Amino acid sequence: MLLSALLMSVGINSCLCVLLFILYSVLRKQPRNYEVFLPRRLANGTYKRRRNKVARYIPSLKWIWKSWRPTEKELMESSGLDGVVFMRMITFSLKVFLFAGIIGVFVLLPVNCFGDQLTVIDYADWSANSLDLFSVANLKVRSQWLWVHFGAIYLVTVFVCCLLYFEFRYIALKRIEHFYSSKPKPEQFTILVRNIPSSDGSSVSDTVDRFFGENHSSTYFSHVVIHRTSKLRSVVDKAKKLYKEVKHKKPVKKTPMRFFSRKDNTEGHYESVLQEMEQNIRLGQAEVSAPGKEVRAAFVSFKSRYGAATALHMPQSINPTYWLTEPAPEPHDVHWPFFSASFMQKWLAKILVVFACLLLTILFLVPVVLVQGLTNLPALEFMFPFLSLILSMKVVSQIITGYLPSLILQTSLKVVPPTMEFLSSIQGHICHSDIQKSACNKVIWFTIWNVFFATVFSGSAFYKLSVILDPKQIPLKLAVAVPAQASFFIAYVVTTGWTDTLTELFRVVPFMVSYIKRSFEPSDENEFVVPPMRYHRDTPRVLFFGLLGITYFFLAPLILPFILLYFILAYIIYRNQFMNVYAPKFDTGGMFWPMIHYTMIFSLVLMQAIAIGLFALKKMELATYLLVPLPVFTLLFNEFCRKRFMPIFTDYPAEVLTKRDKEDRNDPTMPEFYNNLVSAYKDPALLPLRFSGSGSRNDSLTSPLLSFSEV
Amino acid sequence: MLLSALLMSVGINSCLCVLLFILYSVLRKQPRNYEVFLPRRLANGTYKRRRNKVARYIPSLKWIWKSWRPTEKELMESSGLDGVVFMRMITFSLKVFLFAGIIGVFVLLPVNCFGDQLTVIDYADWSANSLDLFSVANLKVRSQWLWVHFGAIYLVTVFVCCLLYFEFRYIALKRIEHFYSSKPKPEQFTILVRNIPSSDGSSVSDTVDRFFGENHSSTYFSHVVIHRTSKLRSVVDKAKKLYKEVKHKKPVKKTPMRFFSRKDNTEGHYESVLQEMEQNIRLGQAEVSAPGKEVRAAFVSFKSRYGAATALHMPQSINPTYWLTEPAPEPHDVHWPFFSASFMQKWLAKILVVFACLLLTILFLVPVVLVQGLTNLPALEFMFPFLSLILSMKVVSQIITGYLPSLILQTSLKVVPPTMEFLSSIQGHICHSDIQKSACNKVIWFTIWNVFFATVFSGSAFYKLSVILDPKQIPLKLAVAVPAQASFFIAYVVTTGWTDTLTELFRVVPFMVSYIKRSFEPSDENEFVVPPMRYHRDTPRVLFFGLLGITYFFLAPLILPFILLYFILAYIIYRNQFMNVYAPKFDTGGMFWPMIHYTMIFSLVLMQAIAIGLFALKKMELATYLLVPLPVFTLLFNEFCRKRFMPIFTDYPAEVLTKRDKEDRNDPTMPEFYNNLVSAYKDPALLPLRFSGSGSRNDSLTSPLLSFSEV
Repeated sequence: MLLSALLMSVGINSCLCVLLFILYSVLRKQPRNYEVFLPRRLANGTYKRRRNKVARYIPSLKWIWKSWRPTEKELMESSGLDGVVFMRMITFSLKVFLFAGIIGVFVLLPVNCFGDQLTVIDYADWSANSLDLFSVANLKVRSQWLWVHFGAIYLVTVFVCCLLYFEFRYIALKRIEHFYSSKPKPEQFTILVRNIPSSDGSSVSDTVDRFFGENHSSTYFSHVVIHRTSKLRSVVDKAKKLYKEVKHKKPVKKTPMRFFSRKDNTEGHYESVLQEMEQNIRLGQAEVSAPGKEVRAAFVSFKSRYGAATALHMPQSINPTYWLTEPAPEPHDVHWPFFSASFMQKWLAKILVVFACLLLTILFLVPVVLVQGLTNLPALEFMFPFLSLILSMKVVSQIITGYLPSLILQTSLKVVPPTMEFLSSIQGHICHSDIQKSACNKVIWFTIWNVFFATVFSGSAFYKLSVILDPKQIPLKLAVAVPAQASFFIAYVVTTGWTDTLTELFRVVPFMVSYIKRSFEPSDENEFVVPPMRYHRDTPRVLFFGLLGITYFFLAPLILPFILLYFILAYIIYRNQFMNVYAPKFDTGGMFWPMIHYTMIFSLVLMQAIAIGLFALKKMELATYLLVPLPVFTLLFNEFCRKRFMPIFTDYPAEVLTKRDKEDRNDPTMPEFYNNLVSAYKDPALLPLRFSGSGSRNDSLTSPLLSFSEV
Repeated sequence: MLLSALLMSVGINSCLCVLLFILYSVLRKQPRNYEVFLPRRLANGTYKRRRNKVARYIPSLKWIWKSWRPTEKELMESSGLDGVVFMRMITFSLKVFLFAGIIGVFVLLPVNCFGDQLTVIDYADWSANSLDLFSVANLKVRSQWLWVHFGAIYLVTVFVCCLLYFEFRYIALKRIEHFYSSKPKPEQFTILVRNIPSSDGSSVSDTVDRFFGENHSSTYFSHVVIHRTSKLRSVVDKAKKLYKEVKHKKPVKKTPMRFFSRKDNTEGHYESVLQEMEQNIRLGQAEVSAPGKEVRAAFVSFKSRYGAATALHMPQSINPTYWLTEPAPEPHDVHWPFFSASFMQKWLAKILVVFACLLLTILFLVPVVLVQGLTNLPALEFMFPFLSLILSMKVVSQIITGYLPSLILQTSLKVVPPTMEFLSSIQGHICHSDIQKSACNKVIWFTIWNVFFATVFSGSAFYKLSVILDPKQIPLKLAVAVPAQASFFIAYVVTTGWTDTLTELFRVVPFMVSYIKRSFEPSDENEFVVPPMRYHRDTPRVLFFGLLGITYFFLAPLILPFILLYFILAYIIYRNQFMNVYAPKFDTGGMFWPMIHYTMIFSLVLMQAIAIGLFALKKMELATYLLVPLPVFTLLFNEFCRKRFMPIFTDYPAEVLTKRDKEDRNDPTMPEFYNNLVSAYKDPALLPLRFSGSGSRNDSLTSPLLSFSEV
């Protein structure tokens, strides 16, 4: 790719950015867009619907300032520790690329530029030069200038590792602090017990009571046995949907246009259907709750956090396959359908997921290969001769090489996170947050494999496998293939990176959906949902740009300013979204950080492997040998961090638990908490439900019964 | 090897066996041999020194009957669960080889014999035939008879796996039963805590008290901080030795012969030296016990077993590298020198051990290659031409090929267990039983590698490595190499196996030592030690014969009767030794079984790999493919057993602990137990010691102080 094509791309995108920023500032002020751009503040009641028509259409960039302002503490309060962890991932990257950027732009770039491997085509017009002129490819074999790169690699590795250590420690401490400052929560007092053995003549409930009453007598409090409710749940959901529909129709019939509709009959009909459904549900609940129909699992609650942890950590039974314990998720986070699946179903689902992931990976090679074809114009002309006329136009060819490839890639990448989330949901996780974590992990590795490696080794899938099977050759092959794709990834950052954040800001899909919806039916002001942040979609995306920045920082330092700009954009926009759009749906207590940490370590080791290969190619024997300890030390450092911090992320230590327990003793709200604890883990499908009957319809919606079951 | 050579070997060894059995029955009745052959019964007082001179010299085999008779319960009482596990390993092998033996001798052997690959040299004289005639080598390529072997392999695998499952379950239940029936023991109530953080201004003892008082307030009982006592211990040991010497001299001076000796002066001199030492020790104890000199570790005791388990399993501190917990060993089993070593010393020792193990493995190839040379007579004659005259004699050559090789191998193997025990002792284990377990593991793998694989792949060490690096080729290479060594290993079983057990019966080294000692100084009747069973020496030995039997059962079924005979001998002799010789030194509660189980699984998989290679060589494609699932299922079965039973071996479950705790509540001896618990884990070097002074000398020996410190 030529410098001019890159500049073109940068130009288009910068203009787009500014334009869209201004457009956004106008759009978000329109009351009918509030549900799309400010749902959270609307739900909180902190945003009033202004009716001042003039101010609405004046563009301003005040929102940037507003999103910049909140402190981390405020973010913590509004979006939980998970939000903080997400934002810290971005600030972490900012720090890394500020440091790497200074080294890259002011030291490595001049060194590369004044190398003499490639000839400068036209001194007068720099833009006509290839981007390779700015990369390490411009240095000769055995050039002593390579020692500068060597130093930079060591420096950046040490910097990133130090930062990773402090960040891990910071978030671990935040996690503990978060626990200290949290109110008593049911999941802190509860564990999930599975594989409860069947004993003759007594129900699961009795067995649980007896076992924990005997073996954890001093701390055992109560339990909730889990029932198989998948069928019942579908009936309940159907009833709720119908009820919503009926409720919606109510304001409609007041308009004079519908005066002739057979409202009374329709209403009467719905009423009777709902009553019948209610009856069915009540029967179903009684049937499901009958003894012998339970799943052999229960949520067991304890009098103290210490008691719950004791039962969680201790082996329970003489037969170690019985009475398996695990931490309980938050009550509203439980993935109930999981419990309805039989062992065989779970097992089959797991195998299915593995195969589906493999299939997705292979199918995804199609768009990747297509993208590769676009960056290679002569090949494209050869394949589609009729395009040669269009392709010969300079602007078109520059757009095609600089903009289109990554757009195609990006569009096809959009389907990956929902697919992975679906796959994770049938894989056997007991709560939604686990599903998201698992999906996040899948998307990270999918992106790294299918975008990075598939682009780099743009040969057949078989060739890629052959690379893996010969581990010694990996650095050399990487050193050949990775620098060759530098210009593609620079363009990728400029185009995909920047548009990515803008799509996030505009919430393109919800915006379009709400627009279409409004054209068909008049909107109901109260009818909107505050969306949750989809960490499994955004975390891998941000991490991937971090990986690109780290691997290319010494190969093509030109990438660094663009990466840095990407992270600045991301910082502003995601903060804005956290404050205005997303509401936290669950609280994992920063469990996403270890994933981020491991991906960073992977990026470092990958960069080091490429460096080893490159120095070997450039025939710098001494430098090559001196680089070999670097990945070893990085992995040892990772192992140290894992030992030092991971235990805090898996379990809270005794020290912390007893301190919280002691504080509770003086808490006057504890009796009430214990009262709620008994039923906190009741399956929502088994809660009493009432749509019709004695109460008026509006009452029943806001009745504690229904609202409770909808938590 | 020819059949005649094998028969010669069998003949020599059978005669030896019978002769030595008779000799043993006479020797053990001689009062002066009691310390060697019956130390345990002597110590128990269950064996009276008979003075009937005639009966003493009449050989009898009554001892065989006596050692056969005791039930498992009696064995459990006298030798603990470890003794039972050891004997069950032998009965397990007996069952396996009885089953495999019947199949091998009555089905496989005839099939092999009547194959037509090798020509029978002389029908009249079977003994002139090669042993290969009885092995699978005698079957042609694509012979349909090989399906018999195929069936046998499946049958034996299934039989061994079933037996392994039931045995693992039996021993796991025995372990629980053993726990139920045991008296309250300090180690059940105690955990070892390491990496206690230093807090300003307070001693380790205070820190421990505060931490456990706060975080485990309801169960915490007491603690003992550990001190660095290696120097002090050497002084105490020296003093004890000197004291023993003085004590020995006492009866001597009463004999009239030593009337002229300057006994009073000598005694006075010793007395003053002892007094001085006592003073030194007291000063040393005070110095070591001073605050600031502690190791940052402590034995922490709890009021109940449940409390100790709670603290053991729970993560303790916000910093997961502090307050590390592990189960406490029995008080007399603690390996105190471990605590005196600094972190650096431990780390260096670990690296040293790894290198020492590697070095030992390489050095050991020398005797193995030598042994290989002996089985290959022509090569020997070529190397040492002057031997050709002797080697041409038939008897000599048969002894050399049939007897000598394994004798050399065996002699050099004798040094391995003590070496491995020494290496394990400096590796950082906190108790003697862990050292023995670790040494046992080392010896098992050393034996398998250096005796089995080194013999089988009798090429250079480099060639062996190349086999490992190419995993696909392993079965084929094994299938070529393993059957070729069949005759060597048959001879090995007959010679080494049988002599091994006889050496064990005769306790050759202790016998010789006691004989030599007696010739130099008159024996003291009370001066003998009951030796502990050295599991790390005997377990690998027995297991290795199991491995040989399993791998060769279908290759050369002729090995099976000899293996069976070996196990019968081992059964009688080890039972005899458990009853008469060895006293248990520690109680691991059957922790050796998992090791035995894994070795058996390894043997099975090795056998299956060889079978796959062999069937591939014999061009039985279908059978080869049908055999591939077998190792997969064996490994899955192993994984299942690990999941199902291993947790019982690592920790006692809550169910068991609370049951025992409840029983204790009615136990009137508990107050006394708690009194002793406080000081159970005091370092013996820090206990008060008194050799001289107010009490008489004999008193001080039997005083509770000294006897306690000598536990």
